[in-house]
Amino acid sequence: MFNKRTDLAVEAREMYREEKKQEIPGVEVDVTEKEGVKVTRVNIREEVGARIMGKPVGNYITIEANGLKQRDKDVYEETSRALGEELKRIAPVDKESTTLVVGLGNWNVTPDSLGPKTVSHLMVTRHIFEYLPEQVDEGVTPVCAISPGVLGITGIETGEIIEGIVSRIKPDRVIAIDALASRKMERINTTIQIADTGISPGSGVGNKRKELNRETLGVPVIAIGVPTVVDAATMTSDTIDMVVDAMVKQADEGNEFYRVLQKMKGEDLYKLIREVLDPNIGSLVVTPKEIDDMIKDMSKILANGLNIYLHPSIGPDDVDRYIN
Amino acid sequence: MFNKRTDLAVEAREMYREEKKQEIPGVEVDVTEKEGVKVTRVNIREEVGARIMGKPVGNYITIEANGLKQRDKDVYEETSRALGEELKRIAPVDKESTTLVVGLGNWNVTPDSLGPKTVSHLMVTRHIFEYLPEQVDEGVTPVCAISPGVLGITGIETGEIIEGIVSRIKPDRVIAIDALASRKMERINTTIQIADTGISPGSGVGNKRKELNRETLGVPVIAIGVPTVVDAATMTSDTIDMVVDAMVKQADEGNEFYRVLQKMKGEDLYKLIREVLDPNIGSLVVTPKEIDDMIKDMSKILANGLNIYLHPSIGPDDVDRYIN
Amino acid sequence: MFNKRTDLAVEAREMYREEKKQEIPGVEVDVTEKEGVKVTRVNIREEVGARIMGKPVGNYITIEANGLKQRDKDVYEETSRALGEELKRIAPVDKESTTLVVGLGNWNVTPDSLGPKTVSHLMVTRHIFEYLPEQVDEGVTPVCAISPGVLGITGIETGEIIEGIVSRIKPDRVIAIDALASRKMERINTTIQIADTGISPGSGVGNKRKELNRETLGVPVIAIGVPTVVDAATMTSDTIDMVVDAMVKQADEGNEFYRVLQKMKGEDLYKLIREVLDPNIGSLVVTPKEIDDMIKDMSKILANGLNIYLHPSIGPDDVDRYIN
Amino acid sequence: MFNKRTDLAVEAREMYREEKKQEIPGVEVDVTEKEGVKVTRVNIREEVGARIMGKPVGNYITIEANGLKQRDKDVYEETSRALGEELKRIAPVDKESTTLVVGLGNWNVTPDSLGPKTVSHLMVTRHIFEYLPEQVDEGVTPVCAISPGVLGITGIETGEIIEGIVSRIKPDRVIAIDALASRKMERINTTIQIADTGISPGSGVGNKRKELNRETLGVPVIAIGVPTVVDAATMTSDTIDMVVDAMVKQADEGNEFYRVLQKMKGEDLYKLIREVLDPNIGSLVVTPKEIDDMIKDMSKILANGLNIYLHPSIGPDDVDRYIN
Repeated sequence: MFNKRTDLAVEAREMYREEKKQEIPGVEVDVTEKEGVKVTRVNIREEVGARIMGKPVGNYITIEANGLKQRDKDVYEETSRALGEELKRIAPVDKESTTLVVGLGNWNVTPDSLGPKTVSHLMVTRHIFEYLPEQVDEGVTPVCAISPGVLGITGIETGEIIEGIVSRIKPDRVIAIDALASRKMERINTTIQIADTGISPGSGVGNKRKELNRETLGVPVIAIGVPTVVDAATMTSDTIDMVVDAMVKQADEGNEFYRVLQKMKGEDLYKLIREVLDPNIGSLVVTPKEIDDMIKDMSKILANGLNIYLHPSIGPDDVDRYIN
Repeated sequence: MFNKRTDLAVEAREMYREEKKQEIPGVEVDVTEKEGVKVTRVNIREEVGARIMGKPVGNYITIEANGLKQRDKDVYEETSRALGEELKRIAPVDKESTTLVVGLGNWNVTPDSLGPKTVSHLMVTRHIFEYLPEQVDEGVTPVCAISPGVLGITGIETGEIIEGIVSRIKPDRVIAIDALASRKMERINTTIQIADTGISPGSGVGNKRKELNRETLGVPVIAIGVPTVVDAATMTSDTIDMVVDAMVKQADEGNEFYRVLQKMKGEDLYKLIREVLDPNIGSLVVTPKEIDDMIKDMSKILANGLNIYLHPSIGPDDVDRYIN
Repeated sequence: MFNKRTDLAVEAREMYREEKKQEIPGVEVDVTEKEGVKVTRVNIREEVGARIMGKPVGNYITIEANGLKQRDKDVYEETSRALGEELKRIAPVDKESTTLVVGLGNWNVTPDSLGPKTVSHLMVTRHIFEYLPEQVDEGVTPVCAISPGVLGITGIETGEIIEGIVSRIKPDRVIAIDALASRKMERINTTIQIADTGISPGSGVGNKRKELNRETLGVPVIAIGVPTVVDAATMTSDTIDMVVDAMVKQADEGNEFYRVLQKMKGEDLYKLIREVLDPNIGSLVVTPKEIDDMIKDMSKILANGLNIYLHPSIGPDDVDRYIN
Repeated sequence: MFNKRTDLAVEAREMYREEKKQEIPGVEVDVTEKEGVKVTRVNIREEVGARIMGKPVGNYITIEANGLKQRDKDVYEETSRALGEELKRIAPVDKESTTLVVGLGNWNVTPDSLGPKTVSHLMVTRHIFEYLPEQVDEGVTPVCAISPGVLGITGIETGEIIEGIVSRIKPDRVIAIDALASRKMERINTTIQIADTGISPGSGVGNKRKELNRETLGVPVIAIGVPTVVDAATMTSDTIDMVVDAMVKQADEGNEFYRVLQKMKGEDLYKLIREVLDPNIGSLVVTPKEIDDMIKDMSKILANGLNIYLHPSIGPDDVDRYIN
């Protein structure tokens, strides 16, 4: 049903609603908005909804903040706070439980470096609990973090590395941060998705083969994903749709021109575009020119949100104060 | 005539020849090929050719090496050698004349960082000639180098910085290295253009307002450009052309469908695409996913070629030996 | 008199006072302290003081903040504010006058990269005044910035680059940021010196031959320096002094042992150490192991202070909000 | 016996021989030299030698190349070749056995970043053997690689991460690369030590608590270490020794002065220096000013040597050809 690929539950829902003009059965949706930051909580409660959405039963929270495009500092701070609050709600932490944060992706490829960059800004504390317990500050919980790299760099499946580490240090939960592909340019670095169902294979900007979830790791896995690229075929297809819509507005309905244009839309066109593009250009990505700055900002937003979530002594006014 | 923007003389020539089925008048062309590296020397000799090409009278040399896509090390080395030889041919150096190499572009934006990265690998010697002349090695000529940054980072027009430095140190020639936009994905990091006519405004991945050429700087300016991105509108437009061509092959000539499809091609479509894309997505670029590695490789190829050109004691077998 | 090299006026004064037990004639000193940040304003008013201090007549302000060693975030913020205030006091800016900030030093050598790193965090605005004057925000003044690199990288004397740029863009003042060598380890990244007399040759971690001051550039030059290294000979000499002092405490005054130890101190010993070290080890520096993090923090402190100084709309509570 | 800390077997041997004027019992030594590269093979065969050396029974190979200080390219290449050959000799590889290379140390601290930088240059192949076995080139063996970070960054003991990964992927051997502390400045980035006994706790520039060796990991562990710093107390102590020696030459033997100076040398002085330095300056390191460039070069030398060792198709003339 949703051949055009999307990693975002909120996009899957939009596509369904556009076509069927109704809400997806077995799915609950709740939307709030505050100071330019919109939070959509999609709860897939039943298998019927999971099948339609193409995603497992669970919570999918989308935080959307268009002001991030203009590098609005207030929106930046509010986004961090919203992330911290939503994480607290779906996966509460305490001093007795350890969190392992995993930064997925390739630090050498800018749009895929979001996970490792976020991890580099985090406040890590597990070693103080282990080796200097008397120096542990109040309001801090045990946090460890790793960026395992990608298959092409390590020669090791990411899942194997994480499984190996989890089996040794036995954390109580894993938070996995990843860069996603989106259908829409306007989502790039303005949307954060939280899912308590883990990471599926094939998602993300790079290729991950192995799922990271409660089944494979034995502990709950919260995935935090941010769209950082659109693939070139998707963008071309969507642009043609927009072009055709623009032409149709100027055309006389009912004539041949109109009918041909309508035929240009849809899945067949998308497949044709893929066929045309693939041999010529391989794996292209479309990014804003300022992708480097955007990833820098977004990695700090995520790290601030995670610090607020993981360390109760860090208040919502402390955005940027504990960023490494 | 050539509204779809191209910085490459070889592309301008191709577009003309495709349409007119003849060579451009007032232009001489010479092509050689060696070990996977093709060198096309376009010499615009007369104003008529300059007008058609949209480029000033002068030499435009294109080095094309498809093997660079597969990171073929032999092609890598041959490309450096070809660059060194072509530069020697059009702008010979000696111990009495100083060369200033300028790395244009923004080091924070991967596809625009080619110039600064190349400069960082160069063998710089002018200070030894100035302060320790007795320590100057045989077969070395005086070379200095700077990466002035971009307007958004310095608040100063690049041309002003270069003019200021040139007026102080009075080099005998300027070599300016820049990342270009190309019409075609397959050119990305496989094509190098050398031009002895300087850099024109509006070229390059970033925006440069001021020309760098013999008129503005008072010395010859050799521009070395490498396509590192395709803009999203160009790519979409070219993709639609390819899609239409693919559809036309399946359609019965002479029918309405065919005529409509043909209408979809060309400049009007391109303008429509720009209109559709602009409000939605601003300045998008399309790059290969491995752009970071590609820029790293290409900056070394350019630095090797420049070292061979500038320092006669560095032979063609010394590729990578004097890279910083 | 002060053969052991120091770039800090406050250290030159300490050394004089230790020896002479009195204040330096022709020099006014004012000290204030606030929230862990001590500000010492040394005003060399007369030539006699200048001669003794080995520094030209002018203002030398030292900001000392020991809490920076513990990465205390409150001290970090207070230091930025103190820097902003002191700069406002000695070199007020307005919308009609342009400031050029120069980041001296080598970005490839961690302890020498403070200037370039600070410049990379600055809020640069001159191009908006030039090209989009209607978009200039209230409470912003025209700022441009450059990191010219060092002689070994560019082949060009830093002073030549700056003179070339100043002669083209004619700023109203130059702020030059540089890493200094200190006599004392405890000053590393805890002390900031502001001087309105420019930069002298031979100061700094790298080698600068040409002075940057009102005489050479034609506009006022404010130097901001931070000690980031101690040279190995100085450290060894000071350590021996401390060792001897510790031994003397245990020894019986008046005996031969005591007299020999006393002879070990002072300039002769220092010269001997230099002779012993030089052939063996060349230019060594002593740094804390965490120098990379320290430079990162200090560059942001300086950038925050400069932003507060240069842009009146950035208030003292906006520390970190406008850091690039 | 050897209170002044050294990680190098060759230094331990020197210190013993200086004092005892004889070779260490139970230890075999073999020295060869070729094109400026000296290889010393210390084989501790018996427990008596192990006790004296303070190191377990096993092979300790030291490669010394003073020409690396002058960035001599021929020495650079010869050093890579020597490393490759020595590794082949003590730990041969083949297509059926997998090697895990571990880059120890902190990528954010220049002198401690040697391991991670080396790993980043390596040719990694295990994933091709696993997922695309038909694409495996002749003359390549399965190699995977990881840089686990340090305790302060991950919150996880390095040994735990490596144990977790080793238990999952079951390599046939581990090669661990680490930055060491040396007693002597002239060793910095000119000496490579290979040991087939693994890594001991407390060695290295950072702090490692857990041994990485056959006992803890269940497979052979080859350690490759390069001195990148001298600690400040060691350097001061050695400098004082040199100063005293220089003074003694000028002094009349037999007088009081001479006897006092002699007393200044040795372990007591070293302890006093540590006491004097510690409260004042904490963990200082002494490095050459050009440490950043030196680490860059050395990481490539190691990666070249490892590539030659691990992939028989990479010949001794291919230095730098397969560096990432």
